[in-house]
Amino acid sequence: MTNNEKALQMHELWQGKLEITAKARVNSREDLAIAYTPGVAEPCKVIQKNPDAVYQYTTKSNTIAVVSDGSAVLGLGNIGPLAAMPVMEGKAVLFKEFGGVNAVPICLDTQDTEEIIQTVVNIAPAFGGINLEDISAPRCFEIEERLKQLLDIPVFHDDQHGTAIVVLAGIINALKVTGKTKEQCKVVVNGAGSAGVAITRLLLTYGFPHITMCDINGILGSQSPNLNWMQKDMTKVTNLENRTGTLADAMVGADIFIGVSAPGIVTKEMAASMNQDAILFAMANPTPEIMPDLAKEAGVRIIGTGRSDFPNQVNNVIVFPGIFKGALEGHATQITEEMKLAAASAIAGLVSDEDLSENNILPEAFDPRVADVVSLAVKERIS
Amino acid sequence: MTNNEKALQMHELWQGKLEITAKARVNSREDLAIAYTPGVAEPCKVIQKNPDAVYQYTTKSNTIAVVSDGSAVLGLGNIGPLAAMPVMEGKAVLFKEFGGVNAVPICLDTQDTEEIIQTVVNIAPAFGGINLEDISAPRCFEIEERLKQLLDIPVFHDDQHGTAIVVLAGIINALKVTGKTKEQCKVVVNGAGSAGVAITRLLLTYGFPHITMCDINGILGSQSPNLNWMQKDMTKVTNLENRTGTLADAMVGADIFIGVSAPGIVTKEMAASMNQDAILFAMANPTPEIMPDLAKEAGVRIIGTGRSDFPNQVNNVIVFPGIFKGALEGHATQITEEMKLAAASAIAGLVSDEDLSENNILPEAFDPRVADVVSLAVKERIS
Repeated sequence: MTNNEKALQMHELWQGKLEITAKARVNSREDLAIAYTPGVAEPCKVIQKNPDAVYQYTTKSNTIAVVSDGSAVLGLGNIGPLAAMPVMEGKAVLFKEFGGVNAVPICLDTQDTEEIIQTVVNIAPAFGGINLEDISAPRCFEIEERLKQLLDIPVFHDDQHGTAIVVLAGIINALKVTGKTKEQCKVVVNGAGSAGVAITRLLLTYGFPHITMCDINGILGSQSPNLNWMQKDMTKVTNLENRTGTLADAMVGADIFIGVSAPGIVTKEMAASMNQDAILFAMANPTPEIMPDLAKEAGVRIIGTGRSDFPNQVNNVIVFPGIFKGALEGHATQITEEMKLAAASAIAGLVSDEDLSENNILPEAFDPRVADVVSLAVKERIS
Repeated sequence: MTNNEKALQMHELWQGKLEITAKARVNSREDLAIAYTPGVAEPCKVIQKNPDAVYQYTTKSNTIAVVSDGSAVLGLGNIGPLAAMPVMEGKAVLFKEFGGVNAVPICLDTQDTEEIIQTVVNIAPAFGGINLEDISAPRCFEIEERLKQLLDIPVFHDDQHGTAIVVLAGIINALKVTGKTKEQCKVVVNGAGSAGVAITRLLLTYGFPHITMCDINGILGSQSPNLNWMQKDMTKVTNLENRTGTLADAMVGADIFIGVSAPGIVTKEMAASMNQDAILFAMANPTPEIMPDLAKEAGVRIIGTGRSDFPNQVNNVIVFPGIFKGALEGHATQITEEMKLAAASAIAGLVSDEDLSENNILPEAFDPRVADVVSLAVKERIS
């Protein structure tokens, strides 16, 4: 049986990967009177007087919604809310198993930006945080920004920021290995969707001055046609020389390549045209932009992919559980840029100087320290 | 320590009465590849082709939303969505413990009818059913009706129908004890909110021809002032003689009194004015419309209350878990009138002829047979 066949079989066996269980027992009339009427009125009255007490007495303290409209699911595209359910349940499993966070899949029967925003605002009272998932760009940018303004609980679009944080963590350690500084590095980010934009923004915030974004039409600049509003915004802070050309042109002399794009679009020649001690993250899934052995042959020094069967897996599962664990434990009202930078540094710091090498720049997905370290980094930055 | 103090203490200890747990383990890379990427894409693709397969592969098969806007919570009134959380969590505990149904509290930050409808429609893909809870009348009627039209999953306002079903079950058995027939009984329902309206409607459907509704202003009739649209509708099918007067007037000669109203508003004299072998359900919580001993002294034969410390507890906890258990197991698209009648008969049938008596007309809340019997009754009526 192939893994895919096994996956289908297991999903049928599970018939849902989540279960909601009761902490309160109701085996007697007295139990009922404590967990339900009339006793339940007591915490209700306390919360009515002091809304913050909701964190003291209810699941809002440790429960988030994993919200998707099914418009950009994995490599599957716009498959809609029902077909997106297995992915959102899987995400909820990871939140629980890696971060101890209760997560509820909320798959939306609308792809209208305003309706999504209104719906999430309306269901927010039951949740301590909102993880946005697999919503297509550029709608995801507006939805996240608006929700951050409207809600007093953390809103986090994992496809953007989870990915950006783990990329930055990997880059921090790759710079240590290669001895390069962020100021001198020329960075190329290929893919101008949610992940590419967020990676670029976080690298800018971290202090990389020279970043060029590319998409299927080549280098993004002020003359590029058909850009969405977010991509246009990005051309004001990237590609400061306003170069034009193809991805191949952009990669000549680059120190860092980050691909969140499509399988096999980087050739050996393009990789070979990069600067000495090049760093290349080829994160297209399941087939990278260039296979690691080919990049190695081309002289690239540090290579990361999204896959677990090669060294340096760049996987946001080491980010999002800890982010929400920390945010919930500390009652953060939002995930700030400072928290994201701190999380990336904390993840990078988990690889000791002795262990750090070309083939070991990031902790493993199953490293039991990760969620705690990330959560602590977030909590320490709650103002 | 009083029970209320203990309830507050336990709620603080639980810090949320629910937990979301993972059925899928993720202890290895292989586990991850089955429960999450890339394996998870397989059920996604199957569901994309055949939306009904969502019941085969996801938690939609056994998960409902418990939706409230916090506008009419227990005896507490309009306490809002945050303060309503402990109640909705308690309800979810009962769904799980009595019916094996996963239930997610969804407390809404809006009390606008249209926004509530739109929000519930938008979140429906993740759920196999919607239990509406503690939404004030008459908005609850419109919200439920519209959602039933818009959704292909069961929508059930428990304050209405759960209560109506358990009342009908009790009445069916009370008729057996007293030897009365539904055709000859004069029924008074006091309270014209969601429960009173739903009880009246279900009793009409069951075949009681003579029902009079009352509220704080007395008998509801075509001349009554200040009725909402639903109460006006009810005056067309109740009080066919179009009588006017007080609750006391209505109760003279009545065979059945059902109170879903306010503590202590039925006097001994009013109870004594009822017909021989009277049946009286005084369900105001926690203090009934008339205390059972007083009603007994007045000559009432069968007395029910909402309380567990008197005989004949009329408690919808014996209804709603089984209703959704059956609806989910049978993939019902709605809860029909036929299912409600069948559920009431099934509950009544659990009290054997030998056990049936004035003080034993309903099964206990903790009777382990109840949810299965109700669920079977619902499933058998799925067309």
